[in-house]
Amino acid sequence: MNSFGFDLLHEDGRARRGRLHTRRGDVETPVFMPVGTQATVKAMYPETLKEIGAQMILANTYHLLLRPGHERVRALGGLHRFMNWDRPILTDSGGFQVFSLGELRKIDEQGVRFQSHLDGAAHVLTPESSIAIQEALGSDIIMAFDECIPYPASREYVAESTARSSRWAARCRQARRFDDGAALFGIVQGGMHRDLRAQSVADLLELGFEGYAVGGLSVGESAELMYEVMDWTMPLLPRDRPRYVMGVGTPENLVEGVRRGVDMFDCVMPTRNARNGVLFTSFGRISIKQARYLDDARPIDPDCDCYVCRHYSRAYLRHLYQSNEILSSMLNTHHNLHYYQRLMARMRDAIAADAFEEFRVDFLARRDNES
Amino acid sequence: MNSFGFDLLHEDGRARRGRLHTRRGDVETPVFMPVGTQATVKAMYPETLKEIGAQMILANTYHLLLRPGHERVRALGGLHRFMNWDRPILTDSGGFQVFSLGELRKIDEQGVRFQSHLDGAAHVLTPESSIAIQEALGSDIIMAFDECIPYPASREYVAESTARSSRWAARCRQARRFDDGAALFGIVQGGMHRDLRAQSVADLLELGFEGYAVGGLSVGESAELMYEVMDWTMPLLPRDRPRYVMGVGTPENLVEGVRRGVDMFDCVMPTRNARNGVLFTSFGRISIKQARYLDDARPIDPDCDCYVCRHYSRAYLRHLYQSNEILSSMLNTHHNLHYYQRLMARMRDAIAADAFEEFRVDFLARRDNES
Repeated sequence: MNSFGFDLLHEDGRARRGRLHTRRGDVETPVFMPVGTQATVKAMYPETLKEIGAQMILANTYHLLLRPGHERVRALGGLHRFMNWDRPILTDSGGFQVFSLGELRKIDEQGVRFQSHLDGAAHVLTPESSIAIQEALGSDIIMAFDECIPYPASREYVAESTARSSRWAARCRQARRFDDGAALFGIVQGGMHRDLRAQSVADLLELGFEGYAVGGLSVGESAELMYEVMDWTMPLLPRDRPRYVMGVGTPENLVEGVRRGVDMFDCVMPTRNARNGVLFTSFGRISIKQARYLDDARPIDPDCDCYVCRHYSRAYLRHLYQSNEILSSMLNTHHNLHYYQRLMARMRDAIAADAFEEFRVDFLARRDNES
Repeated sequence: MNSFGFDLLHEDGRARRGRLHTRRGDVETPVFMPVGTQATVKAMYPETLKEIGAQMILANTYHLLLRPGHERVRALGGLHRFMNWDRPILTDSGGFQVFSLGELRKIDEQGVRFQSHLDGAAHVLTPESSIAIQEALGSDIIMAFDECIPYPASREYVAESTARSSRWAARCRQARRFDDGAALFGIVQGGMHRDLRAQSVADLLELGFEGYAVGGLSVGESAELMYEVMDWTMPLLPRDRPRYVMGVGTPENLVEGVRRGVDMFDCVMPTRNARNGVLFTSFGRISIKQARYLDDARPIDPDCDCYVCRHYSRAYLRHLYQSNEILSSMLNTHHNLHYYQRLMARMRDAIAADAFEEFRVDFLARRDNES
């Protein structure tokens, strides 16, 4: 069995071109992972995901432990086989969704007690059980169990929570089997406080992980503050390990993240927006539901070479959206994920050519030109 | 431009193996047409439809005239281009949906006044406008405007309505351009009365059409009565023209229809059932929502070679259905339409091999064996 690894192939400024080695194949970085919450990237055949260049997807531990259940998935041959996806899968720890439950959850040193949003059944998630569940699913990159701190939060709460997440990270590391070729990533917390971010990094580095994520971003703070936290945190992380910013973000966020040395991203934005009729283009977003597209024979983005832009007009996509047709979600998701994959590919090429800054300036200049 | 035609290639009993020639390519018969009501076969990429062997689809004039509007579709290059489907399309006349509106419609000799189910706007559909709309859409097989008579109905009403449909058929024929290579089919009505069916056929034959449909079936009557009407009607139709039974039906209905000399079918059954979790198999139907499939690692149908059966378990499909995932509709529709296409292909092969009756007996014997 191949073990996990990361090669830093090239640097252009702080932007990094790299390659993850996983037991299910290599992943070129920087990479964007489509989100497959309930063992499916919504409205996409797995084969179509591959066609548009998706290298790795994210699945949500919280949702899968509730339904269909991780032991069931294990018995059925693991998550990859269950959902017909043979490329790498990264699983989150379940913490993010559990902490979002509000009234339905209670946290203590041991872990989190919560009630299922589906049937109210009582569950407990701990660092140990989160790791065991992710192992049962057959995840290739396992995330440590942490608290994604809300924003805003008091400094006192952030400090307490971050210290607890560090203690949980140690328990996660202890709980890992480490004999299956999967990787375990630690997650930096610390809220919007520079010193607490630094303390969190120090705690994790002492434990040692195969990769490092930055959590607690894209929780309501401004883009400027998000970039500031990246600016504080990235330089503290080891150069030879992959860096993953969780739950981020817009195309602009991805470009600014890569600029600051981020290697991995995930976000529901391209898929969720697609189902709401919001489409990404080289000149910004468009909302396909608008009446202005009723007779528009043009593709979503004349600069896009995706299947959707080659075969369908804005008028047709507007019709499908208005008619609540399933194909609306299918085509919109297809286009948006292609947009994200192509953006990452172009960034990888730009870094390799020492032209990332040129790319970034050009990318930003094209935005907000209405069409 | 090629004009429409039909070759009767072989007969096995009353079952017929034939070939339609259309301006958009040939269609091997007997054929089943998936229904693409709103310019999309729900939950299917057009390319996937082709992959599973769909040769021709049906689109609904009523829905398209209301949204996005037939003149808009014409301006955008026609329905084929609009929906990215380059194989033949048959359009219904709009009558079936309009007559289903109940309170919202009023019928007289001229045609039908009705209110849109979308916004209440007033519309009139006449034989002339129905033909014009279907021509604007770019249909390859245009259906005459008729009344699909409800069941049960008084003999008096059936007689009146059928005579009116014949007068409308004459007006449809008069209204057709006949220079675009598309075909016009007449529709036999007459309810469940043998003499009225015969009168309807006689009326239509006097006018002359490129194909003949049998309407007013699958409206609530028993399967036995449906087969009886087919038995009365089919022998009256010209041997050298295609025969189409509209809105039918179950796999058993298709086999019994082909046995009686039907060449063409359409029905929402495989697509609608799919979205409700009802799947067709060689041993009958299964409802994938049942808890018995929670841990079932088997494919839907071990005898099926479709994409879905090759890659997904019943447990996964049950999970997708329970989770309201879009992929549930996509995979279930894919399987069901493949089932229908394969059934038609097997019937075509059986007829060509003079083995249709053997096929039919074997087909029926396999049904209702639980798995």
